[in-house]
Amino acid sequence: MKSDSMPMTALTGKQATVCILGTGDFGRSLGLRLLQAGYEVVYGSRNPGNSALLPNGAKVMSQQEASEKAGVIFVAVHRENYAFLSCLKPVLEGKVLVDISNNLKKQQYTESNAEYLSMLVPGAHVVKAFNTISAWALQSGGLDANRQVLICGNHVEAKQAVVDIIHSLGLTAVDRGSLRVASELEDLPHQLFPLWRLPLGISAGLLFALFVYVVIRDVVYARVVDNKDNSFRIMISLANKVFPTVSLVMFALCYLPGIIAAFVQLYNGTKYRRFPDWLDRWMLCRKQLGLLALAFAFLHVLYTLVKENKTYEFNEMWAWRSDSYLSMGILGFVLFVLLGITSLPSVSNSLNWREFSFIQSKLGYLALLLCTAHAFLYGWDKFLHESAYIWWMPSSYILALVVPCIVLVLKAILILPCLDRTITRIRQGWERSDKAGMDKNAKSSQPLIL
Amino acid sequence: MKSDSMPMTALTGKQATVCILGTGDFGRSLGLRLLQAGYEVVYGSRNPGNSALLPNGAKVMSQQEASEKAGVIFVAVHRENYAFLSCLKPVLEGKVLVDISNNLKKQQYTESNAEYLSMLVPGAHVVKAFNTISAWALQSGGLDANRQVLICGNHVEAKQAVVDIIHSLGLTAVDRGSLRVASELEDLPHQLFPLWRLPLGISAGLLFALFVYVVIRDVVYARVVDNKDNSFRIMISLANKVFPTVSLVMFALCYLPGIIAAFVQLYNGTKYRRFPDWLDRWMLCRKQLGLLALAFAFLHVLYTLVKENKTYEFNEMWAWRSDSYLSMGILGFVLFVLLGITSLPSVSNSLNWREFSFIQSKLGYLALLLCTAHAFLYGWDKFLHESAYIWWMPSSYILALVVPCIVLVLKAILILPCLDRTITRIRQGWERSDKAGMDKNAKSSQPLIL
Amino acid sequence: MKSDSMPMTALTGKQATVCILGTGDFGRSLGLRLLQAGYEVVYGSRNPGNSALLPNGAKVMSQQEASEKAGVIFVAVHRENYAFLSCLKPVLEGKVLVDISNNLKKQQYTESNAEYLSMLVPGAHVVKAFNTISAWALQSGGLDANRQVLICGNHVEAKQAVVDIIHSLGLTAVDRGSLRVASELEDLPHQLFPLWRLPLGISAGLLFALFVYVVIRDVVYARVVDNKDNSFRIMISLANKVFPTVSLVMFALCYLPGIIAAFVQLYNGTKYRRFPDWLDRWMLCRKQLGLLALAFAFLHVLYTLVKENKTYEFNEMWAWRSDSYLSMGILGFVLFVLLGITSLPSVSNSLNWREFSFIQSKLGYLALLLCTAHAFLYGWDKFLHESAYIWWMPSSYILALVVPCIVLVLKAILILPCLDRTITRIRQGWERSDKAGMDKNAKSSQPLIL
Repeated sequence: MKSDSMPMTALTGKQATVCILGTGDFGRSLGLRLLQAGYEVVYGSRNPGNSALLPNGAKVMSQQEASEKAGVIFVAVHRENYAFLSCLKPVLEGKVLVDISNNLKKQQYTESNAEYLSMLVPGAHVVKAFNTISAWALQSGGLDANRQVLICGNHVEAKQAVVDIIHSLGLTAVDRGSLRVASELEDLPHQLFPLWRLPLGISAGLLFALFVYVVIRDVVYARVVDNKDNSFRIMISLANKVFPTVSLVMFALCYLPGIIAAFVQLYNGTKYRRFPDWLDRWMLCRKQLGLLALAFAFLHVLYTLVKENKTYEFNEMWAWRSDSYLSMGILGFVLFVLLGITSLPSVSNSLNWREFSFIQSKLGYLALLLCTAHAFLYGWDKFLHESAYIWWMPSSYILALVVPCIVLVLKAILILPCLDRTITRIRQGWERSDKAGMDKNAKSSQPLIL
Repeated sequence: MKSDSMPMTALTGKQATVCILGTGDFGRSLGLRLLQAGYEVVYGSRNPGNSALLPNGAKVMSQQEASEKAGVIFVAVHRENYAFLSCLKPVLEGKVLVDISNNLKKQQYTESNAEYLSMLVPGAHVVKAFNTISAWALQSGGLDANRQVLICGNHVEAKQAVVDIIHSLGLTAVDRGSLRVASELEDLPHQLFPLWRLPLGISAGLLFALFVYVVIRDVVYARVVDNKDNSFRIMISLANKVFPTVSLVMFALCYLPGIIAAFVQLYNGTKYRRFPDWLDRWMLCRKQLGLLALAFAFLHVLYTLVKENKTYEFNEMWAWRSDSYLSMGILGFVLFVLLGITSLPSVSNSLNWREFSFIQSKLGYLALLLCTAHAFLYGWDKFLHESAYIWWMPSSYILALVVPCIVLVLKAILILPCLDRTITRIRQGWERSDKAGMDKNAKSSQPLIL
Repeated sequence: MKSDSMPMTALTGKQATVCILGTGDFGRSLGLRLLQAGYEVVYGSRNPGNSALLPNGAKVMSQQEASEKAGVIFVAVHRENYAFLSCLKPVLEGKVLVDISNNLKKQQYTESNAEYLSMLVPGAHVVKAFNTISAWALQSGGLDANRQVLICGNHVEAKQAVVDIIHSLGLTAVDRGSLRVASELEDLPHQLFPLWRLPLGISAGLLFALFVYVVIRDVVYARVVDNKDNSFRIMISLANKVFPTVSLVMFALCYLPGIIAAFVQLYNGTKYRRFPDWLDRWMLCRKQLGLLALAFAFLHVLYTLVKENKTYEFNEMWAWRSDSYLSMGILGFVLFVLLGITSLPSVSNSLNWREFSFIQSKLGYLALLLCTAHAFLYGWDKFLHESAYIWWMPSSYILALVVPCIVLVLKAILILPCLDRTITRIRQGWERSDKAGMDKNAKSSQPLIL
């Protein structure tokens, strides 16, 4: 893989010397781990006299001297202070410069720090690495911290030298390609739940809209028509109308994009056509939609359990309905919790594809069916009474049932044998003849998950 | 490890070219990752003109040309289409052929796809790999997908070449041995919860039997003797008799096999004798038994909380008993949840052996004791009243107590100092002299976990 | 990295022979995995005739013969039986001896087993490895067991040979340094929740003190003053006063050390000064404090839900307060559960630093605020009534509020713009001029996490 005649590789082995320019938190943590793994560590510092905080066993010298000692040099200073490196150009010629820097915010500069470094010292081989690992994770021994180190760079041997170091620290290296990817890696630490934005937005919108709706329907109406103050009901009664409705709608929204995708494929007669962008984005955030729906379902369960029990006159028909409605809700919730547990990374990693899709698809639809039945039995014949349409506004439970019913009806259509057979064939790569050959350029590499 | 004179290894390094025969979903995802990791990728296709969907940077050529370019060739077509490979025999001579295929069902063919490939192209070195990884997991960057790639093959250098590729994709390779293992690897994606079958069967059987039992006892009896229709009670009241009973029995069944094993070892006077097969199988599914018991306990808690509260006349004795019974149940359930949490893969991985067995054994028995006490206090002196034996059928809570009590009594016997000392010595390898030497051939390599 | 002229490395490659001295549980599991990974395995045994239990394909011979066959020799016998190795000195010269042993208890001997082995056979290169992995984890294929193998040793090539073997078993090696570290590695399997000790101690102390307090206040007082027996209330009513109080206090204790640290840094004017030891220790166990607080909150929720509902006379002001208090509690608890879920290793590993601190800090303070408001609204104006100070002892809810209120007030002070700006600058490395330069020797490498 590497020819042994390359001088660089010799420098990256154990007992080899690694240089770290900069004595900040990360430089010190990294040096400690490198020393533990058997490397010699030299720090390059502006004032080498001041080395009180550095790990035992490391040497400190001037930046120039330190850079001379090693083949792999970690640049552990902020981008703003890279200027001194241009003075070291002759020393750094042909060496591996590892850029581990992050910026204070996303896309602060036009080019990535690593590319900037590469322009400053064109003779060195710049590798971007370690910026997604925190000093704390490095220092706590990597025992329960994320062990993947993302790297990129243009020079293969230089990357290999860094990969060797990563491995001997007990970490895993993932090569993300050339140095052009560096700006992507530098943006990663600034992400704040990118996949959760859309689902959180949807749930916030639904929450707000429904809250206004039930306040108008239950509080404003009572005040205007009956001149009664119901506002105290906001905290529990109304909250417990809003949360289950949002939960059920979002749960159904998890399954809707898969169904739309199936119909799109049926219409196209092939799986090799790109889905519209909104459908792609929707499908990518189904897990997050589902987990938010689970959180609202959990709130609903707690609100229901603390609410004072109403007492009704006893009648057998009513007992059946009421008991069934509670039972469906409980079974649906427990299945929903199971879905949530299997979406924990460590659990889903231990399942194979067939097991994962059995739970998320088969059991998922069962849970949706139970929850929909729960809402339906809760309402029962209320929708026939006038009181369900105060000011022409239907009860919230009626609103809650719309999307789930659409999803369940469409799914029932899709599992009709004739459609199911066609879908299965399409997913195995078959294409309807009138479509094949005419849309080649529109094909997509997006895998479909149901 | 590998001599540098081997031509093959040179071909597997970075900047090396990798060939993928087939342009399906997996071939495309794999190609994308390989390109990102710095490999050159050539696709071999029947009609090389049609390459719209392939990742940017990959070349497409005829299957023959593509195979000539690379030392490692991924065969990304279905087994049914392997025939064309026999025409490429001269080109494939001495090269590494990676079989990544899966079949539609288990044991569809007499020999594994990889062995079939090896027979078709005897001059090539076939390695089975990647078939347990989904295209989706590959494409989503491996950040939260399972990162273990299982491989097998007969040729050591060929396997090493594939392992190098796996590592540079940021994945971990697990060598499972020679190509004979391939059929095992090909069966893995078809598994559907193999370890859950027995526990699910047990719980389904218990659920059904108990449900029939309580229906006869509570509904049929009321109808026949009192001519009263109690059937509405099925949904909540009866369900909440069945679930806790099943939960407690299955929780006890988790601990019974360990106790039986200890008695078997005491009887044998050695740990080096194989357990009966049923005991081995039982011990392997204890975790699953426990998690199902936890799910039923969760159902019981929810059913209990939604059930309308009965009001009793107040009396101090009764208050003590009732409050204790609820308190025991709550504490037992919380401990049970703790056991469940520590059996999550990522949590149990962060515990050492001593910590894991402290929780699963010590705290587990404490939870069982609390839950049994909960059931016992719930019943209290009911078992003395005639009403507990309608039609000579004891209350379900009496049935629930049988297995847990047996387990707890046997465990109490086992922790008597004399027996405990012997068991400890046996587990450290000591053998009773009258047994040693006579059963050597019956020794087992099954480790015992309690 | 390694020169190919070293004879040792040649012996560690695949197809190479590995020797295992000892045929116990671990030796057998290890041999099985090595065979699966393509190694030849020879066992060295005192009585080589007795090999019934060893994995198929392994050879058994005398200890001397077996040691001659291989370059890497696993010593799978107890330290007490190491004596025979000194007879093999000539054979073991220059070979890699892997010490995998553990002792029955911590610090049983003055020097580690690996160092003792190294003294016995000074010519061999001793590497400590595998002692933190259980035979069971090895045998179950490593699929869901902890895959990090900690190693240490003085000889770099010897360590590399062992690392190669570890990698081909699909495991990850973490080099912890020289053989001096061996005694640390040998202590690891004897740890029993070291980080949980302090939090468990705190919670046990709080539980006990509060329990005595409420028993005196509610039971003893009623007996002495009113001559009424309230003792049955211990099981639920009193427990449900103790658990929420402990939970809220411990939840606040999670956030207190971070606040103290910030004030210490403000006072010092630098982050480069070591914190007092007690603060360091406190900060290291915040996660454990929080999880225990969550467990008590869970108990509180269950106790509250099973408790019979009290009925009050209806009044709107009261309805607002009571509903708000329940609502705050539910929202706080759900947020608290979210904090707990994100502290599962597999979940926190999938978050970047910014996401993790957003949840644990921002959402954490929000949860603490909600829970404090819940306790405050629960009490409302009770603290104005004389009945809240039986025997001059305030109600437990008043005690519960002390620490959280202190934490929230201090936090409110810290987020004042002037202080917040200074803290941020200090954490970015800025030092107040009157401090810089005078405390160089007191600098600390302890990273601060908030």
